[in-house]
Amino acid sequence: MNIIREPKVYLVGRQSVDDAAIDSFLSEYGMAWQTDTDVGAEMLAEAAGRLCYLSYGKGRKDNRQYLANIIESKHGSVLEHAVWNFIIAGVSRSFTHELVRHRAGFGFSQLSQRYVDESTANFIEPDVIAEDEGLHAIWLRAVETSHRAYVELVDRLAAKYKDVPDRTQRRKLARQAARSVLPNATETMIFVTANGRALRHFIEMRGSEWADVEIRKVALQILRIMQKEAPSMFGDYAVVELADGTEVARTPHEKV
Amino acid sequence: MNIIREPKVYLVGRQSVDDAAIDSFLSEYGMAWQTDTDVGAEMLAEAAGRLCYLSYGKGRKDNRQYLANIIESKHGSVLEHAVWNFIIAGVSRSFTHELVRHRAGFGFSQLSQRYVDESTANFIEPDVIAEDEGLHAIWLRAVETSHRAYVELVDRLAAKYKDVPDRTQRRKLARQAARSVLPNATETMIFVTANGRALRHFIEMRGSEWADVEIRKVALQILRIMQKEAPSMFGDYAVVELADGTEVARTPHEKV
Amino acid sequence: MNIIREPKVYLVGRQSVDDAAIDSFLSEYGMAWQTDTDVGAEMLAEAAGRLCYLSYGKGRKDNRQYLANIIESKHGSVLEHAVWNFIIAGVSRSFTHELVRHRAGFGFSQLSQRYVDESTANFIEPDVIAEDEGLHAIWLRAVETSHRAYVELVDRLAAKYKDVPDRTQRRKLARQAARSVLPNATETMIFVTANGRALRHFIEMRGSEWADVEIRKVALQILRIMQKEAPSMFGDYAVVELADGTEVARTPHEKV
Amino acid sequence: MNIIREPKVYLVGRQSVDDAAIDSFLSEYGMAWQTDTDVGAEMLAEAAGRLCYLSYGKGRKDNRQYLANIIESKHGSVLEHAVWNFIIAGVSRSFTHELVRHRAGFGFSQLSQRYVDESTANFIEPDVIAEDEGLHAIWLRAVETSHRAYVELVDRLAAKYKDVPDRTQRRKLARQAARSVLPNATETMIFVTANGRALRHFIEMRGSEWADVEIRKVALQILRIMQKEAPSMFGDYAVVELADGTEVARTPHEKV
Repeated sequence: MNIIREPKVYLVGRQSVDDAAIDSFLSEYGMAWQTDTDVGAEMLAEAAGRLCYLSYGKGRKDNRQYLANIIESKHGSVLEHAVWNFIIAGVSRSFTHELVRHRAGFGFSQLSQRYVDESTANFIEPDVIAEDEGLHAIWLRAVETSHRAYVELVDRLAAKYKDVPDRTQRRKLARQAARSVLPNATETMIFVTANGRALRHFIEMRGSEWADVEIRKVALQILRIMQKEAPSMFGDYAVVELADGTEVARTPHEKV
Repeated sequence: MNIIREPKVYLVGRQSVDDAAIDSFLSEYGMAWQTDTDVGAEMLAEAAGRLCYLSYGKGRKDNRQYLANIIESKHGSVLEHAVWNFIIAGVSRSFTHELVRHRAGFGFSQLSQRYVDESTANFIEPDVIAEDEGLHAIWLRAVETSHRAYVELVDRLAAKYKDVPDRTQRRKLARQAARSVLPNATETMIFVTANGRALRHFIEMRGSEWADVEIRKVALQILRIMQKEAPSMFGDYAVVELADGTEVARTPHEKV
Repeated sequence: MNIIREPKVYLVGRQSVDDAAIDSFLSEYGMAWQTDTDVGAEMLAEAAGRLCYLSYGKGRKDNRQYLANIIESKHGSVLEHAVWNFIIAGVSRSFTHELVRHRAGFGFSQLSQRYVDESTANFIEPDVIAEDEGLHAIWLRAVETSHRAYVELVDRLAAKYKDVPDRTQRRKLARQAARSVLPNATETMIFVTANGRALRHFIEMRGSEWADVEIRKVALQILRIMQKEAPSMFGDYAVVELADGTEVARTPHEKV
Repeated sequence: MNIIREPKVYLVGRQSVDDAAIDSFLSEYGMAWQTDTDVGAEMLAEAAGRLCYLSYGKGRKDNRQYLANIIESKHGSVLEHAVWNFIIAGVSRSFTHELVRHRAGFGFSQLSQRYVDESTANFIEPDVIAEDEGLHAIWLRAVETSHRAYVELVDRLAAKYKDVPDRTQRRKLARQAARSVLPNATETMIFVTANGRALRHFIEMRGSEWADVEIRKVALQILRIMQKEAPSMFGDYAVVELADGTEVARTPHEKV
């Protein structure tokens, strides 16, 4: 059992553009187009936006200006063509319960407490508790007690279900009941796919001072990753430090 | 602190039809239509389906036959016009974490552990644990320990945040950290709005033997409510008892 | 063949609240709640919002203030529990092609040109064309020519498919090919179900000066209907006349 | 003005996996994983599926078997992590009006008839009309008449709006009214982003004998592209020729 205090966000997938296919389309219709980004997702979003107005030939704007204009004019559906894949680990079940409420533009696959053995689980400790010895002691005792109860329940339930012939099914029956005592703090992992519009919405909603501390940390980590990954699409955000030392994301162009 | 073993599902809202408005539309186009259901949602779904083919005048089928045909031919979008509102209480956070993964056709508003004081919370005990004295004792001790830790953490955190001027904000900061130790078993409540297509999908997915015990109980309760509420739309399901004494929902017309 | 210039919007379904069910939930948990709206959808939205904070007993705000606060704080998911059903007729296929791009919170069932005989169809004429004799003449000739071609194609195609045994199938094959010549102006009808959040978004997007004339007319009609139907939820909008004589919807609380 | 009879589908974007990021996640948790596909999207879907059960180390199945199992067990949300981008051209407005009704898992950006000059538009002719000289003549006359009326209306409307100072706005006002006479046959283009689950659903719904001829052609083209692109995810489909010479898609695993 490890105690974790910082979420881990891994960017594991991104798009690439098939230049030949785009050129084949353009030349079929006597058009030509060039852009100055080499980020696949940004290129795809620009290509999609330009299709609406058949404005390929008129490339006076560079990619950053083009996407800035899309974002300013709240024409957010163009950003749905840009997609990224993440693995988020080192996070609590409170966090994922909030995260999966985001629907539009998100896809999720989460570690199942019904199927996975949590007897080696880690736990997420809130900073404000970890920083205070007395609070930490209370928290730790509670988490350890829950964890031991889980292990004991799983063992006894497995014995109770010993006549269920299928081993996977037997374990599932034991684990899905025993998880009842696991705390919100239990570490979970989630595979997240999200498009540019959804990511911007997430960063604005969850990177704000109204958001919970943990989800805000994730929002800020994602923002920092995306600012390197796709500077034309996420370059308008600034990270601002609040009086209490925590950070928020700010942009002049909210709510795509 | 009460221990709860059965979910409570309240059907709190349903649709009614504005007959005069429908008649005004029909007569404007020289059409007439009558149906034999007095369930608003079923009437609206039939009216919507008949609009696609302008088949109002040809009412050879009764409402039940009409909707059965819609369901058989997997023309499920017609069922999206039928909507119901529920309050579900007496359920665990494990349950809602699964429930809110249902996106299409669902809307949710859930009790917030960041804002609500959980010091008087109830807890959901799995049947298989409740029925066994030894398991129950382990479960109860774990839940009570977590709960006491939560109360203690909230108190101490409130003191720690005593300089935060806004009382609501101060409490939120304390509660959102302290909830870390609350178990999955903690009771939650959720306001759920769902259309007929989404409800059928939920009943099929979550009323099956692959589903977790608690979500299956909710699926079966919703099915029983809907069979009274809208017999034309949910009358094809049967409740079947399995060898282990639990129940599942079955229909010849899966996956609308 | 009639020429139509104004869309017709019929509000055909709304929600009612089951007071006994709500009271049964509240009393089970020792709570009580009263509100001052008698609009079912507004009551359901308030009930859902209050569940998140278990703030039923603290009803200092009336329904209008409560929903205003929800809208201001962009807590829009609460408005998803309020749902209405409409039939929209007297509109062109250009309009519905734009309308059905609205996805979140909308359900649609539209008249099918594959199944329905369009030989008695009506056509939607844009105001700017109808108001000018010369333009009208060009428009009318084009529409009449298309329409006659459709009728002739359907007849000949039906003959061509005379060996298809099923009459419905034979007609569908003829109509789905012949519709190729029907203009955007062809009247269509659509059954629309939408929640409060989706309706507000639609009114803001499509009731603005950037929107097409026809969809803006529909947005304004819906707004006027909703201001009577649910004044707490739609009372913040004003209808403003532009210099060109057309109207737009404005609110201080954009983008729920 | 060209006459077009076959849709053109361009696959313009696909995902690639960041192996180092996946390895970094796996090694952090003491896991290892290898798969045998080199298709990014298939690899991402497998990685997501295995996260749910932390089953990385147990790679007895190859990617094709793994995804087949996902598809068979209707665990379709795993396929939402696999995403592709397409440009579809050479299609009618009837087609796109049906296409954009697909919501879950799809994103769209379509050529706007309000902004784009259609005076050089192409038109889509249904096969059954093109193959018959008499029908073709009727169709062609109708389409040419509509087209000429459009050109004339645009010219006169532009003159009518000559006092609108902004050229883009002036043209938009002219084009959005004049498009009223354009037929369904008018060529449109659409940029489409879709995930694996949505593509499978589209292929099953629109590659069936109940589907319209044109949308079925697109579904079959997409299927053929995807069978080369991602054979593990789309290899279970067969293309079957019907008695009338047209094709349909069939799979033993319908409705993911």
